[in-house]
Order: sequence, then C-alpha cells, then structure tokens
Amino acid sequence: MSIVLYDLAGADPDLRFSPYCWRTRFALAHKALPVETVAWRFTDRDAIAFSGQGKVPVIRDGDTTVFDSWTIAEYLEDQAPTPTLFGGPTGRAHARFINAWADSVLVGGIARFIVHDLVDAIHPKDHDYFRSSREARFGESLEAVQAGRDQRLAAFRDLLLPIRLVLRRQQWLGGAAPSYADHIVAGTLMWPRCVSRFTLLEADDPVSAWLERVLDLYGGLGRRAKQV
Amino acid sequence: MSIVLYDLAGADPDLRFSPYCWRTRFALAHKALPVETVAWRFTDRDAIAFSGQGKVPVIRDGDTTVFDSWTIAEYLEDQAPTPTLFGGPTGRAHARFINAWADSVLVGGIARFIVHDLVDAIHPKDHDYFRSSREARFGESLEAVQAGRDQRLAAFRDLLLPIRLVLRRQQWLGGAAPSYADHIVAGTLMWPRCVSRFTLLEADDPVSAWLERVLDLYGGLGRRAKQV
Repeated sequence: MSIVLYDLAGADPDLRFSPYCWRTRFALAHKALPVETVAWRFTDRDAIAFSGQGKVPVIRDGDTTVFDSWTIAEYLEDQAPTPTLFGGPTGRAHARFINAWADSVLVGGIARFIVHDLVDAIHPKDHDYFRSSREARFGESLEAVQAGRDQRLAAFRDLLLPIRLVLRRQQWLGGAAPSYADHIVAGTLMWPRCVSRFTLLEADDPVSAWLERVLDLYGGLGRRAKQV
Repeated sequence: MSIVLYDLAGADPDLRFSPYCWRTRFALAHKALPVETVAWRFTDRDAIAFSGQGKVPVIRDGDTTVFDSWTIAEYLEDQAPTPTLFGGPTGRAHARFINAWADSVLVGGIARFIVHDLVDAIHPKDHDYFRSSREARFGESLEAVQAGRDQRLAAFRDLLLPIRLVLRRQQWLGGAAPSYADHIVAGTLMWPRCVSRFTLLEADDPVSAWLERVLDLYGGLGRRAKQV
C-alpha cells in the first residue's frame, strides 16, 4: 500500500514546490517506497485536520499519520532502515544540524528572492492568506521584500560556502552516497527552482553541479518536476 | 607511547588557544589517548618542518606524522575506532559540513571580535608575523577590525541559531553522546574563551549551557584550560 503524501501545490496542481515536502519526496524515493501525492493548498486546513495541525508535509502510512519533514524522515528510517538516510544515530544527530542550518539560513535567505514570484504560482484561493501571513512575518510588502534582489545575490551565494567546502572533498553531502543531508539541501533548492525563473546559483558553482546530480537521482524525480 | 601534539601557545606557554588544536585535544581525550603537548608559536616553522608544512595542529604518533585537524580526526577514528568520533561513514560525511560551517562562519565571525586581543596573548616573537599576516587578510589594521564589536554582537549571536535549534532537541551535537561535531564547535569557542575577556555568548543562551557541559568532559579538560 502506498504512503499518501499531502504535498503543497500551486494553481497548477502539478506544480509542487515546498522545500519541506521535497525533502520528504526525496526521502521516500531514497527508500524506494511507493507514494501517492495529494495536491494541497495553504488554505486546505480541513483536508489535513486529521493530523492535528495545519502544515505539510503530512504522510499517511496505513493507520499512521506523521507530519513535519524531519519527523517523517526519522519515521521512515525507523520503519525501513535500508537504504539508510542517516547512517546511524550519530549521522542522524549531525544531519539535524544541517536541517537546522537549511531551515534558518537557507530557507530564510531564499525567501527574499522568490516570495513575490510565489504569488504568481500559488492557487488564487491562497492569495490573501499567503500575502497577509508573509507580510506579517517580514514586516513589509512582498514587493519590498523581493526588491533589489540582484544586488543581494553575491551575499546569498556566500552563505553556501560550507556546502562548497564539503563538495571539494566528497561527491555527496552524505559522503560516497546520497543521504538525507542531500535531500535537505536539494529539497530546499527545489523551491526556487520550481516557482521562480530567477537564477540563484551560478552555472559553474560546484553547488550547481551537485544539484544536477541530485536531480538525476531516483529516475530523475527532481529533474522531471514541473517549473513555472 | 604518547601521541605528541604541537599545540599553539601564547607568550605564556600554558596558554593554548588555537581553535583547530582544541578540536584535536578534545578528539584525543575522547579516544582516551595519552598526549604530550609541545608549546609551539606561529614562527616556529623549523620545529614542524618534518610535517612538510607550517601550521598546527601536527601530531606525531610513533613514526607517523599527521597535520590538519580534520585529517587528524579521521586518522584517530581509523586507528582507534571506539569510542567513535563520527559514528560511521555518513556521520563522518555530515560532520564535514559542520566542520566547514565552523571554519567559514564561526572562525571568520569570531576573529573580528578577538583579533586585537590576540596580540596581547601571543609570544612577542610572533607579533610582526601575526599583525602583518592578519592585516593583509582583513585589509585593515587589527584595531579597525575589532572596533565597534559591541554593536556587532547581536548579528554574531544570530549566526549560532542552527546550533540553538539542534540543542532544543538533543543534548549534544552528536546526539545522546558527544561526537566530533561537539569538538569542532566547542574547540572553536575555546579560542575566544582562552585569549579574550570579551563575552561572546549570553549566559542564558542554550549554547552557553552546552559549552559548560563540554568544558566538564574528559576530566574538565576545557574548564581547566588557562585563560587570559
């Protein structure tokens, strides 16, 4: 029986762009677990009320409901230990740092480049919720948040230096093989890739070359993903 | 036979403050390996010429010479697998990200708070080398680099957010037990602790509480360390 994933979608139901849902998509594919995705919009609270909260990713695995991308990754690793996402308890603990870094530095950094592009991608019924919640978070209009992004690009790229240093020495963030660390960072980068035409990474950045490798994993799951 | 560690020292030979040598000290203590340290100054190039390069940490283990803190940690893990520093290949690969983050974000961030304090701590014979090499790196005088540090403190503390997020969920960066990830970050924080009276961390920061726990490890190795 397939695992059901409630997956953030745009106006186009095939446009899937959540940085957290992509972490889960990659983790499920890594485990070769069959998945059936359900297109979900920000305001579809009732559809996931069974999970006791209001955000995706949420998965249903038979009678079990799990939400939050990190918790889902731990659940999948515990249910189906191989192929491993974490490589043991220490690898899991260290991956939590990479997850925390991606959540704070990477998601926060990318948001200011694409948050207004997101308005054009999301379902019209989500517009009011999205704009009011995000403008409250940033304390200014979405137009103002995204303004001047060309001038901020070099500083954003500097934030990726730790990834670049790692990729000088190993092919994947997981070492000789992809791990959940790759899913965390690549899943986060699927977000701008899918909803914005803005170029965040330079073509000759080693991070770009690594992302291309991730896009080819799991039968090209990331590469086939719809983009605006 | 003890491993010999060439360890950066100040004018006071008991003042040991290198963020990289501290990573090695903690890793050796984690492995319960006996160590004999040799006080080394920046300009003592001849003393470590046998290593083929000019920086510490350098260790001699019988006939084997290893330099660079990351390479030393890998060597120790391969020679004496338990107690583990990395918890396997994936844990090692993920620790490399934490090492890269500490080298770029943390060392770079801390340097601007303490680089002028370092002048008072290092051996007089190192003064010319230290000032000229660091001023070339920063492109301004050490006084200018360190100026206005009170105003930059909040931004520095924000950089520690990923650590804070991890420590909400686990006691150590290594999870239920300390790993080399703890040594990387705590070793880096030993640097300002030993050479400067400037308070980088707030007392009620969870990072402070965790650092206190690290200071108590290995018989209080970190806590006993000489401070200016």
